[in-house]
Amino acid sequence: MRNRYAYLGPAGTFTEAALRELHPGIPEGAAVACSGVDDVFAAVRNGEVDAGVVPLENSVEGGVTTTIAELINGTPLLISAEAAIPVRFTLAAREGAAIADVKRIATHPHALAQVRGWISAHLPEAETFTVASTAAAAQAVAEPGAPYDAAVCAAIAAERYGLRPLANDIGDRSEAATRFIQLSRPGALPAPTGADRTSLVAFIADDHPGALVELLNQFALRGVNLTRLESRPTGDGLGRYCFCIDADGHVADAAVGEALMGLRRVCRDVRFLGSYPRADEGSGPTQCMPAKGTSNAEFHDAKRWLERIRSGDVA
Amino acid sequence: MRNRYAYLGPAGTFTEAALRELHPGIPEGAAVACSGVDDVFAAVRNGEVDAGVVPLENSVEGGVTTTIAELINGTPLLISAEAAIPVRFTLAAREGAAIADVKRIATHPHALAQVRGWISAHLPEAETFTVASTAAAAQAVAEPGAPYDAAVCAAIAAERYGLRPLANDIGDRSEAATRFIQLSRPGALPAPTGADRTSLVAFIADDHPGALVELLNQFALRGVNLTRLESRPTGDGLGRYCFCIDADGHVADAAVGEALMGLRRVCRDVRFLGSYPRADEGSGPTQCMPAKGTSNAEFHDAKRWLERIRSGDVA
Amino acid sequence: MRNRYAYLGPAGTFTEAALRELHPGIPEGAAVACSGVDDVFAAVRNGEVDAGVVPLENSVEGGVTTTIAELINGTPLLISAEAAIPVRFTLAAREGAAIADVKRIATHPHALAQVRGWISAHLPEAETFTVASTAAAAQAVAEPGAPYDAAVCAAIAAERYGLRPLANDIGDRSEAATRFIQLSRPGALPAPTGADRTSLVAFIADDHPGALVELLNQFALRGVNLTRLESRPTGDGLGRYCFCIDADGHVADAAVGEALMGLRRVCRDVRFLGSYPRADEGSGPTQCMPAKGTSNAEFHDAKRWLERIRSGDVA
Amino acid sequence: MRNRYAYLGPAGTFTEAALRELHPGIPEGAAVACSGVDDVFAAVRNGEVDAGVVPLENSVEGGVTTTIAELINGTPLLISAEAAIPVRFTLAAREGAAIADVKRIATHPHALAQVRGWISAHLPEAETFTVASTAAAAQAVAEPGAPYDAAVCAAIAAERYGLRPLANDIGDRSEAATRFIQLSRPGALPAPTGADRTSLVAFIADDHPGALVELLNQFALRGVNLTRLESRPTGDGLGRYCFCIDADGHVADAAVGEALMGLRRVCRDVRFLGSYPRADEGSGPTQCMPAKGTSNAEFHDAKRWLERIRSGDVA
Repeated sequence: MRNRYAYLGPAGTFTEAALRELHPGIPEGAAVACSGVDDVFAAVRNGEVDAGVVPLENSVEGGVTTTIAELINGTPLLISAEAAIPVRFTLAAREGAAIADVKRIATHPHALAQVRGWISAHLPEAETFTVASTAAAAQAVAEPGAPYDAAVCAAIAAERYGLRPLANDIGDRSEAATRFIQLSRPGALPAPTGADRTSLVAFIADDHPGALVELLNQFALRGVNLTRLESRPTGDGLGRYCFCIDADGHVADAAVGEALMGLRRVCRDVRFLGSYPRADEGSGPTQCMPAKGTSNAEFHDAKRWLERIRSGDVA
Repeated sequence: MRNRYAYLGPAGTFTEAALRELHPGIPEGAAVACSGVDDVFAAVRNGEVDAGVVPLENSVEGGVTTTIAELINGTPLLISAEAAIPVRFTLAAREGAAIADVKRIATHPHALAQVRGWISAHLPEAETFTVASTAAAAQAVAEPGAPYDAAVCAAIAAERYGLRPLANDIGDRSEAATRFIQLSRPGALPAPTGADRTSLVAFIADDHPGALVELLNQFALRGVNLTRLESRPTGDGLGRYCFCIDADGHVADAAVGEALMGLRRVCRDVRFLGSYPRADEGSGPTQCMPAKGTSNAEFHDAKRWLERIRSGDVA
Repeated sequence: MRNRYAYLGPAGTFTEAALRELHPGIPEGAAVACSGVDDVFAAVRNGEVDAGVVPLENSVEGGVTTTIAELINGTPLLISAEAAIPVRFTLAAREGAAIADVKRIATHPHALAQVRGWISAHLPEAETFTVASTAAAAQAVAEPGAPYDAAVCAAIAAERYGLRPLANDIGDRSEAATRFIQLSRPGALPAPTGADRTSLVAFIADDHPGALVELLNQFALRGVNLTRLESRPTGDGLGRYCFCIDADGHVADAAVGEALMGLRRVCRDVRFLGSYPRADEGSGPTQCMPAKGTSNAEFHDAKRWLERIRSGDVA
Repeated sequence: MRNRYAYLGPAGTFTEAALRELHPGIPEGAAVACSGVDDVFAAVRNGEVDAGVVPLENSVEGGVTTTIAELINGTPLLISAEAAIPVRFTLAAREGAAIADVKRIATHPHALAQVRGWISAHLPEAETFTVASTAAAAQAVAEPGAPYDAAVCAAIAAERYGLRPLANDIGDRSEAATRFIQLSRPGALPAPTGADRTSLVAFIADDHPGALVELLNQFALRGVNLTRLESRPTGDGLGRYCFCIDADGHVADAAVGEALMGLRRVCRDVRFLGSYPRADEGSGPTQCMPAKGTSNAEFHDAKRWLERIRSGDVA
C-alpha cells in the first residue's frame, strides 16, 4: 500500500506544487487535498495520511498563521522535509483562446495585487474578479460556460484544470521563494545530510530585556547559525511570547544538541519541531564559514580533553 | 477640508474596523477603500490621502507579506499609529432570516477554517462557499437574489451591507488581536505618551553567528524591551536577511535613541519606521520592570557625570 | 614514611602559616622551607616533596608574580588545596623586653608601610630598618647581640624564633585575606565537596573586542560564577594576553565541565589548574542564588531530553 | 619654581627609572624618594609634590597591592602618565672589582629568584644575601667596608651609588615590561594623542553570573578594547568585588565616553582614574583593527542621523 499525503488544497495550489517537488511522480490517489491547514494537521495526527504539506512562510494564499499556531500549540508533529517554491504566476485560459480574447480575469486578491502591473501593461481593458484561491480561479475558468476568460494561477493549476498558459511569470516582482513543510507523526528523524535545518519553539522563562539575548547566545556560543527567528504570542495571556527558530544543522550534531540542551535548561519550555534536509543551501541571517570550535570533531576532542582533566591528567 | 484615509478594502473588512477604531466617527467620504495593500501605500505616497491603514500581523485576510515588503523596500513612510483589533466572526443574514433558514454560507477560506467547529455544531447541514474576502461574502449575501443565505464576516461588514447578525463570536478559538498600522508621509512624529512603540528594520552587516546577538545587545544593554522580532529575506539575494523589530519606547527617549545610534553604527543599514502610541499597554516578549540605569533621568545623570570627568573633576 | 611539603620560606612566613592551616600538626621535618617560589615548584616537580605551598594573591612578601608565571608557563602542576590567611602583624621582641624598650624595629618594607600608623602612635621615637622578609626580621631579632629590639612579623614567626608578642594586629587597615595554594603533581583530583573552586588559564584565540565577552559567556550561560579574573601577558610577544580565572564549582560538575569544554573549543589553549575545596564559602564577584537550569540534575534532565528528541520521541 | 615629583624609593629603584623615563633630565632636587607607596599618594594629595610615580603591575619590589588599594579606596587622584620599564638586572660592584672577586652578593629576594640561573652558571661559589630592596643592596655595596662584594640591582642603582656594572641583563627570563603610573591631583586631563589609555574601577551592582558579561559588553558593543582586567575585593565585606579596567582610547573619544556612561548607569559605582598617553603602542588582550562603527566620525554620523529621524525626516 502506497504512502498517502495530505496538502492544503484545492488541487492546483502552490502547496500541491510543493508536495510534488518533495515526491516527484506521486500517483494521483496518493495526494489528498484538504480545505484548511487544520485539516492537514488533523489528517496526519489521526493516521489518515502518512504525512502532510502546508505553507510555513510567505504563502500567497495564506495558511501561515494557522500553521504556526498548530506547530506551537497543537498535538506535537515533526517536520520531516521542506520545499522552497518560487511563487510564479501564469495567465491561463481555455484551449483555443488568445491573449486578445481575455476580457474577464479571475484570481485570488493577493495574486491580483502582484500582477497588476503586468495586467495594466498587457490587458488594460480587462475586468478582474477575485475568488477564494488561485486554484479556484483556474477551476472556474475551466468550467463550461465559465463567467471568466482567464485565471491568474500557478502553472500546476493550469495543468490540473486543462488550461493553456497564455503568459508565464507575470508577477510584478520576483518574490523570495515560499517555504512549505512536510509534517509527520513522531518517529525516527531523517538522517543528517550535512545540509540540514532544525526547527523549534522556545518559550522564555523570564520577561526581562536580555532574556532573548541569553537564548540566542545558546546558539551563538556553539557557532550555530539561525535562519529564522520570529516572536509570536504564546496565546496564553497578554505579553507572553515564544520564539519560532530555525537553525542550521541537525539535532544529531554536537553543536546543535548542546545548544538545545542549553535552551532546555534555561527556557520555560522548548518544543522540538524536527531536523530535516535544507531545501536551499547556504542561506541564513547569520550564515558564515564554520567558526572555530564548532565542528563535531572539535566537540568530541573537547569531550575527551574533559575526561582527561577530570582524571587529573594534565601532564 | 477633511483628512482622508485609505484602507485595505472592500468596505467591511477588519482593516476598516481598525481605521474606525483609530478615527471614531470618521465621515463616510473620508474613508477610501483600496483593493490592495500596495494601493494603500501608493495613495499615501502620492498625497491622494493623508494616511492609510493596513494589516501588519496575523490578518485573517492577508496583506501582511505585502505590508512588510513595502515597509522594508518601498519609498519610506512613517507608522503614525497602530490598532489592535480582535478577530471576531459574525454569522450575518438578510433582515428577516433565522438561523434555521441558513443552507448556504459564504466566507473567506481562512475565516471558514476558523469557524468550522461552530458550523458543524450549529448548522451541520449547511453548504459552505469561499469567496475573496469576508466583506465580499457579506456584500454577496446582501444582493437581491443572492446565491448565499448568510456570510461569516466582521461585525462591521454586517452593518455596512445591512445584514442582521444571527450569531456573534463564532470562531473556534479566540485569537490574539490582529495588529493594524497607520501610514503617514515623513514629518513630525507623534509626541511621546509614556507608552509608545518604535518600529525599525535592521540590515545586519556581517553574516556570522553572533551578529544577531550583538544587534540585540544594543537594545538589552540600554534596557529597551523588544515586542516583535522577525527575520525576513531582504530580497536582494539568497541568504541576506534583515530584522523587523518593534521596541518599547519612543525614539525621543534617551535609551531608545542611544540604542538606535548603536544599530546605525554597526548595521549595514537601519530603516526607522516610526514611534507612536502603543495600542496595548504592557505586553512584549521581554516586558519587565524598568531596569537599573535605563530611565531618561539616569541617562542624563550619566551624561553630566561624563562631562565632569572629561574636565578632570573627580574629587 | 610521612608526606613532605615545601613552602616559600624562611620559617615564619605567612606562607608557613598557610601550610600549617592546611596540615595542622605537621611535624617539623615534614615542612621544607624554600628560598623562592621557583624552588617550591621545582621541589614538587622533581618529587623531592609531595606538595608545596605558595602565595597566589596579595601576599605581603610577594611571590605572586612568579607563582602566576609558573602556573601559566611552567611544567603543569595541579592546585590541590587553598588557604586564606588573614595578614596580621605582630610586634615581637626577645623574652623580657617591654614596649618601652623598643628603639629599633626591623621588618619587610611592605609590612612597614602597613604598620606605620601604629608605630607613629605608639613608638614615635623608634627607628625602623627594612630587611628581606618579616621572618628574617624575627630571626635577626632573636639572634644574640641583635642590632634590633623588635620585629614586625607574623605571629608564627614570633613563635618559631622564640620571641614574645608585644602587640598583635597592629596593621593600619585590615586587609582582605591573602590566598595561598598547594601544588601537587598531576594525579587524581580532590573529590567534589559541594563548595569547590576550579582554576584555569585561558589563552584567547582572536584579539578582537568581544573575544573576552564570548569567553565569559561560556561561564555565564551555564550559570558558573567567576571569583577571580585577571588578564596577564602571555610572555610570548607584545599584546598577547591570557586570563587567569577562578570559578565556583568542581570540574566534575556538569555546568563547569561543559563551560570548560566550551573554552577548549573556542580558545587557542586552556590550561586546567585544578578543582579543590574553597577556603572561603560564598564569596565571589558574581556570587548568587543557583540560577535556573544550572544544577547537575537539570543538566542531566536536559541530556535525557536530548536523547529522547534525537530518537524522534516528541509525543 | 620647578615641578617636584615623588616616587617609591630609595634612590635607584626601578620606580626611579620610570620617573626619569617620564621626565628626562629632571634635576636632582626635583625627585623625592618616599619609603612607601602610601607616602607617594600622600605627598601628591597634600600638595607637597606636583605628581608621583608608583608601580602598578608586576613590580619586582612590590607596592602593587598598595597602589591598587589606594586607587580604589583612597581620596581620588588622576593617572596622568604611564611608563613601561623592562625589568633588567645588573651585577654591580665597586670600582676596580672584577667578576672573579665576587664572593658575597646582596639583593632583594624576588630579584634573587630571577637571577639564580645566571649566578649558578657564572658564580657558583658566591654566597647570596637578601636585603630590603635592590637599591638598598647597591647602597650597601657602595659603603666603605661593605659586607658584600656586589649587588643585583637596576642599572640606575649602580649609577646612583657609583658602582660599576660587571654584567648586564642577567635575569633568567626576560619579563614583560613592568608598568608604572604617574599620579596627579584632579584637574585638566592630558589631551588625546590618538594612542591613549583610560583607567577606571567598576563596582558591579548585582552579584549574578552574567553581571560581568554585561559590564564588558558596555565596552565590546562600542568596539573599545580592554588592555587590563582584574577583579579585586572591594574591601567592604566578603564577596564584594570590583574590576580594575584599562581600556584603549581617551575619555574624550565618543566610543569610550559612551561606554563609560553605560557603566555609570548600570554599575553601583564607577571611579574614573584618568586618560593618558599609552606607553606601548598596539598591545592589549583584545587589540584589533578598528571595528565597524566605532570611530568618532561614525558616532557623530549616528548622532546626526538620530536628530534627523527624531524630526521625522526619513525620506
